[in-house]
Amino acid sequence: MLTQRVHVDRVFHALGDPTRRAMIEKLSEGPVSVTKLAKPLAITLAAVVQHLQVLEKSGLVHTEKNGRVRTCRIESRGFKVAECWIADRRSLWETRFDRLGKLLAEPD
Amino acid sequence: MLTQRVHVDRVFHALGDPTRRAMIEKLSEGPVSVTKLAKPLAITLAAVVQHLQVLEKSGLVHTEKNGRVRTCRIESRGFKVAECWIADRRSLWETRFDRLGKLLAEPD
Repeated sequence: MLTQRVHVDRVFHALGDPTRRAMIEKLSEGPVSVTKLAKPLAITLAAVVQHLQVLEKSGLVHTEKNGRVRTCRIESRGFKVAECWIADRRSLWETRFDRLGKLLAEPD
Repeated sequence: MLTQRVHVDRVFHALGDPTRRAMIEKLSEGPVSVTKLAKPLAITLAAVVQHLQVLEKSGLVHTEKNGRVRTCRIESRGFKVAECWIADRRSLWETRFDRLGKLLAEPD
């Protein structure tokens, strides 16, 4: 079981790369084989596999081998981690703004 | 005006670094000076300034100089970009799952 901090690190590191985000964009449309996923990308198949490992470790993508074909699909677990981290920050600064607003609205 | 693609690139690149995320975590609690922001981080002030530039360019942080003190605060624009990118992906794959669910629920 990953600690929350390590998971946040892995997810944002994974999302920080434009090739990996392009892979996620493609997979959002539906599961595809590694070969199909690699086709529009201007990198080697070995590089695609490395990116996939990063995406799998962060819980953003799941891959499964059936016979000779490895199929990739989106996994929502990693996205939830990113969404929660942003939502937690937003909640902190919005609460602060609300307090400030109330303070400014008070009569002198 | 940044194109949406460039903005998404900058925001996720910025969020991909643990030091920059630590800076965002601190700033979510309220605005602070660059010196105060740098204090708990085990890096030089010059490195902090470089990270701040990345955060500013991506619209995640805003800095302002008053006299000799530069104050940093959260800017929500960049967070909106990250939230939208994730929400768009989620919407795509959830729509697909819904369609699949309906198809499976149909009588033979």
